[in-house]
Amino acid sequence: MSLTLVIGDKTYSTWSLRAALALELTGEPYREVLIALNRSDTRARILEHSPTGKVPLLISADGPVWDSLAIAEYLAECFAEAHLWPQARAARAMARSVCAEMHSGFVALRTHLPMDLKRDQALAEVPSDAQLDIQRICALWAECRAGFGQNGAFLFGQPCLADAFFAPVAARLRSYQVELPAEAAAYVETIYQWPAFQRWYQAAQEEHLA
Amino acid sequence: MSLTLVIGDKTYSTWSLRAALALELTGEPYREVLIALNRSDTRARILEHSPTGKVPLLISADGPVWDSLAIAEYLAECFAEAHLWPQARAARAMARSVCAEMHSGFVALRTHLPMDLKRDQALAEVPSDAQLDIQRICALWAECRAGFGQNGAFLFGQPCLADAFFAPVAARLRSYQVELPAEAAAYVETIYQWPAFQRWYQAAQEEHLA
Repeated sequence: MSLTLVIGDKTYSTWSLRAALALELTGEPYREVLIALNRSDTRARILEHSPTGKVPLLISADGPVWDSLAIAEYLAECFAEAHLWPQARAARAMARSVCAEMHSGFVALRTHLPMDLKRDQALAEVPSDAQLDIQRICALWAECRAGFGQNGAFLFGQPCLADAFFAPVAARLRSYQVELPAEAAAYVETIYQWPAFQRWYQAAQEEHLA
Repeated sequence: MSLTLVIGDKTYSTWSLRAALALELTGEPYREVLIALNRSDTRARILEHSPTGKVPLLISADGPVWDSLAIAEYLAECFAEAHLWPQARAARAMARSVCAEMHSGFVALRTHLPMDLKRDQALAEVPSDAQLDIQRICALWAECRAGFGQNGAFLFGQPCLADAFFAPVAARLRSYQVELPAEAAAYVETIYQWPAFQRWYQAAQEEHLA
């Protein structure tokens, strides 16, 4: 199947990163179209591809698929043998729940600690609502790894869509130097050791931004 | 399978309505636990059931499933023969895209026109950002019905999860008396004629609120 992923700057675009990691999980080759954000022609260039005017967008044999979570489910279905979701139904239900919670929530974290893969500096102060988000996320990670992770480093044993969805959070926690419980810090390190994430991270370091 | 859905006030809780409509699409019996919102014990009562402190929550044989979109995917998978998503893959990809766009977006519409099923009154003025949301939604509806709706009243022919996700929008547009293109108005009427929606709407009319 011919697959093209339209993304934004790798340094900043969390939802693009999630979709790219979902694609990496399939093992399929794909073409990448990167549209530089915050330039005068950014919106026009995105609209050439994307009906929403947003990234990421997956151009597939079944037409455009947009929004990271729809891309994730689409790929999980098309490449069933790659097991993008955990194979046990209870684990899959939990993985979908945490991804959906990420997709619609954690607004304070997203607002106050926007992803910047070139950053390595703490905030003067993490606002209390963002702290609550971080506590909730650390609890989720612990629950997934204890209940479904089969004593592995990833949330559900093998890397899956839930890791794709929380990788940008791991990146924020590290780049803003947030102090974490040991278990959460270990999960952040797991993400930084994930080859698919490393490729994206390395490309972000080499990216020239507007 | 034993299924319990924990929801908030039917008058106000859009995400509860989406999950309930998803359940209705399965045709399965389920138990409903309604937690009155905006009361002193609301949060404590939700936390008895729900790890996020939010509704809706589905209590299933596979454990708790939360967030409307995870509930939708979980039910679509468990009750595959009920076809909660459209059967053609391209239609399914589009349906997932529009649901995910609804799930993460349209913040202006959600902020300025919160669902109130007891309301029948226009706003003095619809803010321009909410107007843009409404235009985008009307375009989405038209695209779904023209491309995949098989000339039916629903977005993809038979009622599906995309209709469940946009039913609360239809309710807002009617209760705030928003003027609409004829085709969008016809879709709103389709939702109001949908028996599953009518049951919820009627219950909302009879609901005593805090």
